[in-house]
Amino acid sequence: MTQPPVGIIMGSQSDWPTMKEAALILDTLGIAYETRIVSAHRTPDRLWDYGKGAVDRGLQVIIAGAGGAAHLPGMMASKTRVPVIGVPVQTKALSGVDSLYSILQMPRGFPVATMAIGAAGAQNAGLMAAGILALQDADLAARLDQWRSDLSASIPEVPTDD
Amino acid sequence: MTQPPVGIIMGSQSDWPTMKEAALILDTLGIAYETRIVSAHRTPDRLWDYGKGAVDRGLQVIIAGAGGAAHLPGMMASKTRVPVIGVPVQTKALSGVDSLYSILQMPRGFPVATMAIGAAGAQNAGLMAAGILALQDADLAARLDQWRSDLSASIPEVPTDD
Amino acid sequence: MTQPPVGIIMGSQSDWPTMKEAALILDTLGIAYETRIVSAHRTPDRLWDYGKGAVDRGLQVIIAGAGGAAHLPGMMASKTRVPVIGVPVQTKALSGVDSLYSILQMPRGFPVATMAIGAAGAQNAGLMAAGILALQDADLAARLDQWRSDLSASIPEVPTDD
Amino acid sequence: MTQPPVGIIMGSQSDWPTMKEAALILDTLGIAYETRIVSAHRTPDRLWDYGKGAVDRGLQVIIAGAGGAAHLPGMMASKTRVPVIGVPVQTKALSGVDSLYSILQMPRGFPVATMAIGAAGAQNAGLMAAGILALQDADLAARLDQWRSDLSASIPEVPTDD
Amino acid sequence: MTQPPVGIIMGSQSDWPTMKEAALILDTLGIAYETRIVSAHRTPDRLWDYGKGAVDRGLQVIIAGAGGAAHLPGMMASKTRVPVIGVPVQTKALSGVDSLYSILQMPRGFPVATMAIGAAGAQNAGLMAAGILALQDADLAARLDQWRSDLSASIPEVPTDD
Amino acid sequence: MTQPPVGIIMGSQSDWPTMKEAALILDTLGIAYETRIVSAHRTPDRLWDYGKGAVDRGLQVIIAGAGGAAHLPGMMASKTRVPVIGVPVQTKALSGVDSLYSILQMPRGFPVATMAIGAAGAQNAGLMAAGILALQDADLAARLDQWRSDLSASIPEVPTDD
Amino acid sequence: MTQPPVGIIMGSQSDWPTMKEAALILDTLGIAYETRIVSAHRTPDRLWDYGKGAVDRGLQVIIAGAGGAAHLPGMMASKTRVPVIGVPVQTKALSGVDSLYSILQMPRGFPVATMAIGAAGAQNAGLMAAGILALQDADLAARLDQWRSDLSASIPEVPTDD
Amino acid sequence: MTQPPVGIIMGSQSDWPTMKEAALILDTLGIAYETRIVSAHRTPDRLWDYGKGAVDRGLQVIIAGAGGAAHLPGMMASKTRVPVIGVPVQTKALSGVDSLYSILQMPRGFPVATMAIGAAGAQNAGLMAAGILALQDADLAARLDQWRSDLSASIPEVPTDD
Repeated sequence: MTQPPVGIIMGSQSDWPTMKEAALILDTLGIAYETRIVSAHRTPDRLWDYGKGAVDRGLQVIIAGAGGAAHLPGMMASKTRVPVIGVPVQTKALSGVDSLYSILQMPRGFPVATMAIGAAGAQNAGLMAAGILALQDADLAARLDQWRSDLSASIPEVPTDD
Repeated sequence: MTQPPVGIIMGSQSDWPTMKEAALILDTLGIAYETRIVSAHRTPDRLWDYGKGAVDRGLQVIIAGAGGAAHLPGMMASKTRVPVIGVPVQTKALSGVDSLYSILQMPRGFPVATMAIGAAGAQNAGLMAAGILALQDADLAARLDQWRSDLSASIPEVPTDD
Repeated sequence: MTQPPVGIIMGSQSDWPTMKEAALILDTLGIAYETRIVSAHRTPDRLWDYGKGAVDRGLQVIIAGAGGAAHLPGMMASKTRVPVIGVPVQTKALSGVDSLYSILQMPRGFPVATMAIGAAGAQNAGLMAAGILALQDADLAARLDQWRSDLSASIPEVPTDD
Repeated sequence: MTQPPVGIIMGSQSDWPTMKEAALILDTLGIAYETRIVSAHRTPDRLWDYGKGAVDRGLQVIIAGAGGAAHLPGMMASKTRVPVIGVPVQTKALSGVDSLYSILQMPRGFPVATMAIGAAGAQNAGLMAAGILALQDADLAARLDQWRSDLSASIPEVPTDD
Repeated sequence: MTQPPVGIIMGSQSDWPTMKEAALILDTLGIAYETRIVSAHRTPDRLWDYGKGAVDRGLQVIIAGAGGAAHLPGMMASKTRVPVIGVPVQTKALSGVDSLYSILQMPRGFPVATMAIGAAGAQNAGLMAAGILALQDADLAARLDQWRSDLSASIPEVPTDD
Repeated sequence: MTQPPVGIIMGSQSDWPTMKEAALILDTLGIAYETRIVSAHRTPDRLWDYGKGAVDRGLQVIIAGAGGAAHLPGMMASKTRVPVIGVPVQTKALSGVDSLYSILQMPRGFPVATMAIGAAGAQNAGLMAAGILALQDADLAARLDQWRSDLSASIPEVPTDD
Repeated sequence: MTQPPVGIIMGSQSDWPTMKEAALILDTLGIAYETRIVSAHRTPDRLWDYGKGAVDRGLQVIIAGAGGAAHLPGMMASKTRVPVIGVPVQTKALSGVDSLYSILQMPRGFPVATMAIGAAGAQNAGLMAAGILALQDADLAARLDQWRSDLSASIPEVPTDD
Repeated sequence: MTQPPVGIIMGSQSDWPTMKEAALILDTLGIAYETRIVSAHRTPDRLWDYGKGAVDRGLQVIIAGAGGAAHLPGMMASKTRVPVIGVPVQTKALSGVDSLYSILQMPRGFPVATMAIGAAGAQNAGLMAAGILALQDADLAARLDQWRSDLSASIPEVPTDD
């Protein structure tokens, strides 16, 4: 079985309803991916191994979702040069601003491509991954162009009451 | 003259001291780039043309910095599937939180890879661009690995008073 | 068919429940309007055309509602000198503060008349449009004065338990 | 002496360095204006009189700047149907977010066209006033169009170090 | 009929469920009060009259609740030297932080005694009024002392599951 | 020596530059006061004693300034029914929002009359104390009325460049 | 009956659903504790006594939860050198940011070990207490190590739809 | 040479001016410590090793300071059961609120004892460490009690102008 180019990782099972949006759009665009729960705090060694092996296994993009202190995306960016896209998962008390700051405010040297808070951000993470992979894959580029122009074409001219 | 793979664009000359950090790290890593002032509001047609021509001209990554309402990165993401990395420039009254929200909170369909507020974010935008280009360029990948390991090696063990 | 003086535009069908408040108050005041979905990101060309044609078509005021990155009001203000009134639509994670900052913090040259977040802001956008049009329309001015004094007269002196 | 169409009012002498930006752009565009200090709290009767007389005196637009609790723009909107443009002045502890919320979050019935915090907001208030007046003044419309296109033309293509 | 010493005023009928807490605690402490809807924007003349007559009518404390732009407490403080206690009513989008800043951040000269956001703040407004009136009323002081010591005595030692 | 009616207390010597504004306005209005450093954390017993003795000593109003966790005003309100006016002192990292929330968000039973953040809040604390004392002191009421009308009279009609 | 090493205290019965999480994890780890309602404002003398007696009674750690102005943890830290762990309870209007700032921003001299807002913070308070007690108790250290490694082992590799 | 009981670690040399406050108070109290730069992102293996060896080397408390994404304290808490005290270092754009949220909002299982933002928080981290160590060291307990009572005794009764 070939290594899929995208890894979708998340800090906890509870992040899956959000992160599933990334998986769904990758399905739509015909991009293979793997999904893993990798908790920065509860399974740090799993994080280490995932990061260390990313290049060799042939991962091209890592999408990492997390909430609260949300150390997963940034720690993954520390362990591999494979581009890491971060998705701040919405939280109860701070509405995901905690997740956002923890993912976004990375120090010099270790960028995380941060997306919007919540499900829209997860879908966009999938599209950002597609845009990166499309640089080397003309077929995918065509599919992404088509998806984008279909999206535009789907917008009605006038709002309706229902 | 060949098209450089990276475009660094910004909303105003006043963003350059921040965005220069992106240029400097690209210089360090031996990645060619072009720089342009593209104001979403003052030169919207320039934005349109830049976005529309991006794929055909061979741009691989666009780094876009802006402050305040900061529409440039998002509008560029609307006009091209080339990956857009956004840098929120720090502002006077709202410290760049306005720039951040305008760049980050993109709707489904049009991701912007948002970096930290300010100069560190601009440097990281360059490194994110490098990480993306390194997927297709083994030499660059090696230079990036080296830069990362040099950075790690440069950290002293113990803090000093000066 | 004559061109109505007011255009109510919004980034998405999902903004309509909010923006309808603008339509309802314009109905009440006897001001004609058109409604359009104009997505800054999904239909940028529609935005371009709407903005470029605004003066020639005889639009006098544009009311633009959007949520999240909310680029529509500001980009419209970039494309036409017709006054643009912006309505920040409430959002899930950031409660409309993202919409607000994206609409409000416009750079020098391109004002957007920003209203309160949500439905009250949409109604007030209609009233602001009325106030602008009333400068050239004595009948409308009288109707607006009447509406305002009716509103004042409707306030009871003492609160009641139900 | 004829009544100028625009009134620039502010809560205190200390708001003038900010509000002067509104005056300067009106000068540039050849629009007459008056300036007044009208404190909602220290001179409430002055506020009352200014608001009550606005229509009869022939004011077309009121630009009102204030900081902190910043009640001036909203109270003025309560007293007259002349369009009120509000400028949140930056404050020491809360950076103008207090001014912003007090001006923006007006209840149904009394819109204030809120501009960005600080000097850029004041300049934009002048431009918004110009856009409103241009609806009835073709010469002003032409001057405003020219100013806008000059602004666009002034943007250099490439950022420079100095 | 004698003038009660406390006036409870609010910007709208919708503030009553919050402000009723002030009335209830005044009932408990045996302090007479009147209730009025006084909208700073919809009934500014009512505000003016209420403020101007406050001293002569013998009002000793005014409790003013409002939400959003919340100009009522501050404008009342401008019109009378009778102590004004302000209650920020919770709002939908900004959770009452808008109400809070509008009430709290009064300029030099016109204090508003700001309470906590929402119902607890309204109850405390009543208690603050009681504390002020108790300075001149030994019986009330005794009742207030008793209420406070009853409150303390009512706290159980150990939490229970239900 | 007679007990002055007002106590100005503060958590630390470093609060004095802010709290001095309260003292100065009391001087202006001819109201006697005492000043004390009472640290809720460093001198809790001093706080206890001050609160317990407040009624018996004849204190009529306590003005309490503090920064950061700022427990002094609220703890004082817990120990005495004498009205407590709280002044949030501006802080370095959080600009006084920490002080504000700690002073403002008191639970049911123990109101603190919270003023604006910083020096303006301290001056207003003095004026609020004056308003409370004026309820029982016709001479003071007259002086306060005069001060207020002098303040209003001091506002120039038109802003000047310097 | 022996004194348990941990005291779980809270400002009100309404904090118990949050603070119970601390009790549950202490149960799991076999650590004895007592629970008390100690309101900083309603029962200040109870707070005083609890703090003064803490060392002599043999308390090793105090876990204190509170919401809003949330003075309990900080005042307890003022009264005893026994380590105080603070839990900010989530609140209605400000979501616990008020509780957080009041607990966190303690002045020099009186640390409170602040945990995350809400129930997760309460559980972590119990774990922090365990970590402190484990420094002197090898059996507890082993149980804590086991609990931590069980937690890690419980994380599945792959997210599931339900 | 014996292992000191306290480790002061920080993400970067630039955190030292803040974290030095922790060292100074430990010096004052006669507690030995070591200092290390351990960057979560630049030297993740150093972090791993430090955490893994903490128990065996005999560390009793780890004080960890970091700014921005600030992953160091939380990752250390993931790697060892030795109590971790976190100090949020103040940052340029977000004033340390980013550091705070990243350190504070830890998920269940891995507490970090978070201190106030900046230098006061660093000093308090040292005092919290002292409080923990004093549980097993009667001499230190006496020194800490003395330091606390000296602090209280140092507070003057009355503020002075300088």
